[in-house]
Amino acid sequence: MAENTTDIGRELSEQLNPGMEDALNARYGHLLPGMAEGVVDFAYGRQYARPGLGLRDRYLATIAALAALGGQTKPQLKVNIAGGRKAGLTQEEIAEVIWQMALYGGFPSAINALNAALEVFEEEEA
Amino acid sequence: MAENTTDIGRELSEQLNPGMEDALNARYGHLLPGMAEGVVDFAYGRQYARPGLGLRDRYLATIAALAALGGQTKPQLKVNIAGGRKAGLTQEEIAEVIWQMALYGGFPSAINALNAALEVFEEEEA
Amino acid sequence: MAENTTDIGRELSEQLNPGMEDALNARYGHLLPGMAEGVVDFAYGRQYARPGLGLRDRYLATIAALAALGGQTKPQLKVNIAGGRKAGLTQEEIAEVIWQMALYGGFPSAINALNAALEVFEEEEA
Amino acid sequence: MAENTTDIGRELSEQLNPGMEDALNARYGHLLPGMAEGVVDFAYGRQYARPGLGLRDRYLATIAALAALGGQTKPQLKVNIAGGRKAGLTQEEIAEVIWQMALYGGFPSAINALNAALEVFEEEEA
Amino acid sequence: MAENTTDIGRELSEQLNPGMEDALNARYGHLLPGMAEGVVDFAYGRQYARPGLGLRDRYLATIAALAALGGQTKPQLKVNIAGGRKAGLTQEEIAEVIWQMALYGGFPSAINALNAALEVFEEEEA
Amino acid sequence: MAENTTDIGRELSEQLNPGMEDALNARYGHLLPGMAEGVVDFAYGRQYARPGLGLRDRYLATIAALAALGGQTKPQLKVNIAGGRKAGLTQEEIAEVIWQMALYGGFPSAINALNAALEVFEEEEA
Repeated sequence: MAENTTDIGRELSEQLNPGMEDALNARYGHLLPGMAEGVVDFAYGRQYARPGLGLRDRYLATIAALAALGGQTKPQLKVNIAGGRKAGLTQEEIAEVIWQMALYGGFPSAINALNAALEVFEEEEA
Repeated sequence: MAENTTDIGRELSEQLNPGMEDALNARYGHLLPGMAEGVVDFAYGRQYARPGLGLRDRYLATIAALAALGGQTKPQLKVNIAGGRKAGLTQEEIAEVIWQMALYGGFPSAINALNAALEVFEEEEA
Repeated sequence: MAENTTDIGRELSEQLNPGMEDALNARYGHLLPGMAEGVVDFAYGRQYARPGLGLRDRYLATIAALAALGGQTKPQLKVNIAGGRKAGLTQEEIAEVIWQMALYGGFPSAINALNAALEVFEEEEA
Repeated sequence: MAENTTDIGRELSEQLNPGMEDALNARYGHLLPGMAEGVVDFAYGRQYARPGLGLRDRYLATIAALAALGGQTKPQLKVNIAGGRKAGLTQEEIAEVIWQMALYGGFPSAINALNAALEVFEEEEA
Repeated sequence: MAENTTDIGRELSEQLNPGMEDALNARYGHLLPGMAEGVVDFAYGRQYARPGLGLRDRYLATIAALAALGGQTKPQLKVNIAGGRKAGLTQEEIAEVIWQMALYGGFPSAINALNAALEVFEEEEA
Repeated sequence: MAENTTDIGRELSEQLNPGMEDALNARYGHLLPGMAEGVVDFAYGRQYARPGLGLRDRYLATIAALAALGGQTKPQLKVNIAGGRKAGLTQEEIAEVIWQMALYGGFPSAINALNAALEVFEEEEA
């Protein structure tokens, strides 16, 4: 798996979030050289690109986790809801998985996450 | 959806965790009358039994959330990993979704959750 | 306890948060049919309406928990502070219980929760 | 309020948890001189001893918060459940407030906290 | 260590955050008399002023913790980043320690904390 | 920074935690091929080995974060306390930084983390 996880990650990152690596570099690169490449290599090349679980399932899992962890990661939750939609999750499936999280992260976190989902769904229709 | 969510939940609860309602009643019922029924009705009848998302996906989401929330819910994580196995998740899929959570709940939580999964997998082989 | 927890919850919900069930249905019902009823039945009919602890104490506990969990649930914290005021908690009692949470959820969470309380108290006077 | 918060805290600490200051000193004092006094002064003298909220309510709030925060603080949860019993909370009230936290900290945390409460209640009968 | 921790804390508090005690009193004192003094005595006099660890290291630790705990404490994170700068931390060191927290609190929390740091750094240049 | 972060990480990992990569492979590799290398590359090669902050400071930050996040990561906390000792932190500095976290993660988490530190310090003397 070794030498080309960065390339694999870059290809997947560009497909899922075009321009993300450049954006990270532009925003954080002067303070943290190599940070953007680390995100591409680890999060995309060594995590999302792994063959053992499909992208649709990975987004489902991420949305579940961010909803349970609470509203503090709303920007990332919205990015992943949008990503999950592209990976094939329906609006209903996303709402279902978030609402299920009321059992694990509490009702307030789940309601806040549903509100984030509604924002993404409204942007889809715009 | 109203009047029979308790019956629907009881049927699903008995299928997934046989004896759970009786066990909750025996353990907590003297202090919290009706609590076991509330779990059956809400968690099973009004959440896991909802038609919008399959059981396998619901377990995937729960495992993801509990892994990201950290090792504090290890007993419940193990129950849900075992449940997810019955609902069709492979050992590999479970390991993948837990390890992915390193990105959202941190490496220590993910490692601890992997250890919980290994315990369940070892019990399967026993 | 079974068949009328929904009715009991609806009555209490309407008393504490008039129009909440309709609002949940209007906002989330197209994606999550039955969700609003589940909140009414479980959170109100099977939790807040339970006889073993009074409403004033239940609000005290909820405010404590949301303050300790951190500012991520500010909207719900404000709703429960306002609810606690109607259930008989004084401004001083609410401030006391929040500040006590500095011991359990840290100083920043407690300060943020105090700020949420001040917003509610200012709205009372408006 | 200044100069005698330590004395006030010491008196209350000795009443609620006899020997605690000495135990903290014996265990941590070689590394953290003054730490035990800081706990006595701040947690007891400047928090629990404050006049705006009674001890029974303060324990109710603490039990709620620790239950919602999750099982990671089980030793402290048990100490506070025992303290709450001495301050007048019934077993039923404690069970109620913990179970209510299922709404805010999730079902697994609430179940784990109920188990901690049962341990305390069993020790009472021993 | 006893009687003058308040004075020690007040001196340090005024040096690090001039006017903070008065601001706390003005904002919260009517509801929580003595609270501002408690912050000064405990957080500054009994924690930050302790001789066993320097201020620069204390700020480094606080920034790390708040970054790992998530974006919910952004106001406090910004205050401590600004404080850390005065205590000698470079922008690079602050960025490094925050980004390292991706390993412990997850990538979204770390990214949110980096954004808070950028806001502080931009204000420095204004 | 690209191609040799894995080599850099492996060297540092072997220096700080000899045998860790092999242990991860032996334990998790059958389920998660490449996972151990990912830890080595990202956590060591792309985080701890970064030049902008020294190892002693990185351990200080990690100990702070794990203490504030709560006792759920006790195994990792102990590993990092031991690592911090090797990187030059004194027992006193470690106790100080943990106790400071009472302000951010609450008193129970800080006390639990102090107990983890005492266990490490006792093992040192054994």
